[in-house]
Amino acid sequence: MILIADNIQITNKKIERAMENYDPVPIRKMVKECESAGAEAIDINSGPLYRDPEKKMAFLVETIQEISDLPVLIDTANPRAIESGLNANKKEAIINGFSLEPAKLEAILPLAKKYETDIIGYLLYPNGHVPPDEPERLNVAVELYQEVMKAGIEEKRLIIDPVLAPVTWNNGSFQAAEVLNVIRNLPDLLGFPVKTIVGLSNLITGGGYREKKLLLERSYLPMLVSSDITMILLNIFHAETVRTARACDSLTRQKVFAWEDLG
Amino acid sequence: MILIADNIQITNKKIERAMENYDPVPIRKMVKECESAGAEAIDINSGPLYRDPEKKMAFLVETIQEISDLPVLIDTANPRAIESGLNANKKEAIINGFSLEPAKLEAILPLAKKYETDIIGYLLYPNGHVPPDEPERLNVAVELYQEVMKAGIEEKRLIIDPVLAPVTWNNGSFQAAEVLNVIRNLPDLLGFPVKTIVGLSNLITGGGYREKKLLLERSYLPMLVSSDITMILLNIFHAETVRTARACDSLTRQKVFAWEDLG
Repeated sequence: MILIADNIQITNKKIERAMENYDPVPIRKMVKECESAGAEAIDINSGPLYRDPEKKMAFLVETIQEISDLPVLIDTANPRAIESGLNANKKEAIINGFSLEPAKLEAILPLAKKYETDIIGYLLYPNGHVPPDEPERLNVAVELYQEVMKAGIEEKRLIIDPVLAPVTWNNGSFQAAEVLNVIRNLPDLLGFPVKTIVGLSNLITGGGYREKKLLLERSYLPMLVSSDITMILLNIFHAETVRTARACDSLTRQKVFAWEDLG
Repeated sequence: MILIADNIQITNKKIERAMENYDPVPIRKMVKECESAGAEAIDINSGPLYRDPEKKMAFLVETIQEISDLPVLIDTANPRAIESGLNANKKEAIINGFSLEPAKLEAILPLAKKYETDIIGYLLYPNGHVPPDEPERLNVAVELYQEVMKAGIEEKRLIIDPVLAPVTWNNGSFQAAEVLNVIRNLPDLLGFPVKTIVGLSNLITGGGYREKKLLLERSYLPMLVSSDITMILLNIFHAETVRTARACDSLTRQKVFAWEDLG
């Protein structure tokens, strides 16, 4: 299971300012901190980038790749920014992402073929709404898969995000359970070992005590691992969550257990 | 999911001494502490009780039930002690437990019918060895179920323990993963919502740093919950593990989430 830092994001004021001013220093610093904390890939959540999308995403990708060899996830709904990021990319990049939303099918999905990259597909309705349960998510997954085939993209390029809802939603815990079922059942449904990703921070978006939220995050993560998730996008500075992830790794590694790995 | 304290056990010197001297005070104290810590049932692990098994188990059950209304699990391989405990029982008791071992089939299983109690069945070979994987455990489960039927016991009385191995075993993490699969697949295999239990402390039996062992325990517990386990037997004084269990409950409760419950 691969841990992806969601820390480079526009909602962080320091990152927002650095992007505005094309100041590489705070971005480099945070990327280094993410690596030290255990990140195995870096999500670049730039927001929609209404102004200078190409220039800004290229700046972000270049700044990060100057000091890090980790794969980057180009996380924006702006196809111009995505393409610019893919052009700037000199290492490994993943598009994050597309959905059945017509504009995304048209402008984002083809980029995965053009640039031969992996691409994350969200299990959302064409109108962007979250499906209510597992069967509906699986229906969307089949449609998403068909779109990937239609676009001439290899199936191994698809990474599915079943879309975790905040646990504070009315039916948040039901949604969390359904997401686990989706992850468990997708390979059988689609007939190949489809890769999956979940944005763990989504679970605890919104109000609530920090300690309780962290406890929920740490409690849900092993359930994801046990459902055989491929990648988890999370706040990599949550040290106890990362330690839990490593313990889960050791529990599911299916080989001789090494205490040393849990340091 | 029900949390059962495994703290009343003969390997605890205080408890051993209290049993030897028929001194109810340390036992009462610990049972009260277990209740405060969140125990919903109390396992009475008396060991084999070579001397005075009837008198000792009756003393234990009576002492606990004088001050607690929690169900008790009568946890010994000695059928005389079990029967004495069931006779002394004035509240709810569960037999813990039997296996395909001929002596247990003969002398322990029938007690579940005679006293109309639930009984835990261990997925172990007749010689007491641990099956190597999920398919073998499921074979044993079918045989165990057939024995329960033969003994004229209602199927709802059966609680299956798939037998968790220490993670320090050569293939410990493989075993831990197989146990999850067993728990998940038993209801389909046997055709009814079979109850399950796991002794979580088994996972971290043996050497290793305490903090790492607790982390492993806390990381494995959500996997058990996500496999829909009915009961977890654990050291109820591991406060963070109990908090994790409560967080898991809130994540799987399939109703509106209440932050208050996570106190």
